[in-house]
Amino acid sequence: MKKILNSPQDFVRETVEGICLAYPGQLKMLNNDFRMLVNAETIRKKDKVGIVTAGGSGHLPVFLGYVGRGLLDGCAIGDVFASPSATKMSDIIRACDFGKGVLCLYGNYGGDKMNFAMATEEVEFDGIKIASVLISDDIASSEEFEKRRGVAGMVYAFKIAGAAADLGYNLEEVVSITKIALENIRTMGVALSPCIVPTVGEPTFTVADGKMEIGMGIHGEAGIEIADIMKADELASLMFNKIDSELQLKEGDKISVLVNGLGATPQEELFILYREIVGLCKLKNVTCVLPHIGEYATSMEMAGCSITIFKLNDELYRLLEVPAVSPFYTNNNIY
Amino acid sequence: MKKILNSPQDFVRETVEGICLAYPGQLKMLNNDFRMLVNAETIRKKDKVGIVTAGGSGHLPVFLGYVGRGLLDGCAIGDVFASPSATKMSDIIRACDFGKGVLCLYGNYGGDKMNFAMATEEVEFDGIKIASVLISDDIASSEEFEKRRGVAGMVYAFKIAGAAADLGYNLEEVVSITKIALENIRTMGVALSPCIVPTVGEPTFTVADGKMEIGMGIHGEAGIEIADIMKADELASLMFNKIDSELQLKEGDKISVLVNGLGATPQEELFILYREIVGLCKLKNVTCVLPHIGEYATSMEMAGCSITIFKLNDELYRLLEVPAVSPFYTNNNIY
Repeated sequence: MKKILNSPQDFVRETVEGICLAYPGQLKMLNNDFRMLVNAETIRKKDKVGIVTAGGSGHLPVFLGYVGRGLLDGCAIGDVFASPSATKMSDIIRACDFGKGVLCLYGNYGGDKMNFAMATEEVEFDGIKIASVLISDDIASSEEFEKRRGVAGMVYAFKIAGAAADLGYNLEEVVSITKIALENIRTMGVALSPCIVPTVGEPTFTVADGKMEIGMGIHGEAGIEIADIMKADELASLMFNKIDSELQLKEGDKISVLVNGLGATPQEELFILYREIVGLCKLKNVTCVLPHIGEYATSMEMAGCSITIFKLNDELYRLLEVPAVSPFYTNNNIY
Repeated sequence: MKKILNSPQDFVRETVEGICLAYPGQLKMLNNDFRMLVNAETIRKKDKVGIVTAGGSGHLPVFLGYVGRGLLDGCAIGDVFASPSATKMSDIIRACDFGKGVLCLYGNYGGDKMNFAMATEEVEFDGIKIASVLISDDIASSEEFEKRRGVAGMVYAFKIAGAAADLGYNLEEVVSITKIALENIRTMGVALSPCIVPTVGEPTFTVADGKMEIGMGIHGEAGIEIADIMKADELASLMFNKIDSELQLKEGDKISVLVNGLGATPQEELFILYREIVGLCKLKNVTCVLPHIGEYATSMEMAGCSITIFKLNDELYRLLEVPAVSPFYTNNNIY
């Protein structure tokens, strides 16, 4: 295992400590607990709907990297690829309740769902108004929307919910627009090489020489097809068409495209994919705006990428444009 | 070779085309030539010292990713790991001459030096005032400062020169403060795995199992030592001490630390390194400010990292804080 770490057991704690040392004005641990991170700014201001998430480590910038201005207020942090406990979630929810209610916005994974269910039950007891929205943008993970996993599309969901809360939307309104956003977000991924969970020490799966696994999940969940490595344009086309078959893009539509690197894939390759997607959109008279290209949701050192398409209406476009800043995300550089 | 591309010969062109499609308001090709990129904004404004660079591809965000507001005005783009031609450089210099002279700021590599020498000779003929500053921050590459390669420290050099030019410094002043910055910037890197040049198709060197190459360059240039994989804290300490032996950090000093991922190294690991460096600085009563942690100068899919330390005086601190925005860099999220 070629990793830069001290001990696998300390991996998450030391990562979060490093992050808090780097950005003390923006991110702080709740109760000095590295498993709970809050936005230092909103915690002071307290006049908005709170937006929280939770999830396993190993996906930076997901999840905690989206705690910031115009984004999330708090995040409970699990071990690598593992859900945090319900207790951490309920503590984060309480800390991010500013009197206007809290939206729990998270990926559709078994552990996270179960623990958030317990956490929200507990805090509702305290009289905190709670709503939950599940992110399930990965079209390769199931034919049924409700069974799909949440992957890179969650970045758009965080952005939209965070912007709406910042603009003063109430909880019902934040929930409503976030759900509309999610109906218009689809992601498809492909893996070229595996990743290594530090406490395991070796790859948990393999992708054979000359092959790519289409639809593989960000924890190595099996995909829908093992294919020969194909040209970038073919791959872009395959992913675009699969997504388009659901979003039904038509002339005049505006979309934002997120081309996401899973960890080891050079940024150069992401732009080669984006180039072809813009070309495919031009053929349909679909306009690409506010692109997100880079590492937004990773799987440690996995090679591969995902493409997310977010079909925008006027309100979603405006919300995507609202300034947002975290140490890991800013949208002032994508115009 | 597991890469997402169409043909190795089209790799650079398609990458730059993708970038220009993504950020048309910020970056544009000069003369529709993908080997020359300029800042769409300064080209319109034309009231500052021009700052240009040039270099090979395969290092995103280096080099072209630092063309932006408060950063570079133009960049000539070579093939992967190869210098662009003198002609592209002279065209870029001409385009970025706004009447106040142009600083050519680039890494100390043979091809780039030779071609910039030809290019500057040519444009001086046209009456354009030119200065050149070489970046040679890689302490592992030679005992002699003048023979050292330029690596991730160039990001700080671009930032300082760009800020100074934006604030209205004249050419001599920009040169002077950039040289002072470079005297206070040192980098040391370590490689854990090789990278693959697309036209070659296989790794150009190897790093054995269980080993890391300390001091390896960003093109795979031999390092100073092949060591067993060590713990993150040991590695941070080794690199910090080596850099400190040159910068001679003392109580009260302020530094900015750049922990750079070379391509395949998870961001989590970079923060584990940063955590230890802050600890080492505390022992010396040295303060870490304005950290840069992420992928700033890569080598395709190479695993490994570099640490750059930039010792700041008051003027350098102010210049580092001046807002800067490119599609690949912003400093509004590191406070």
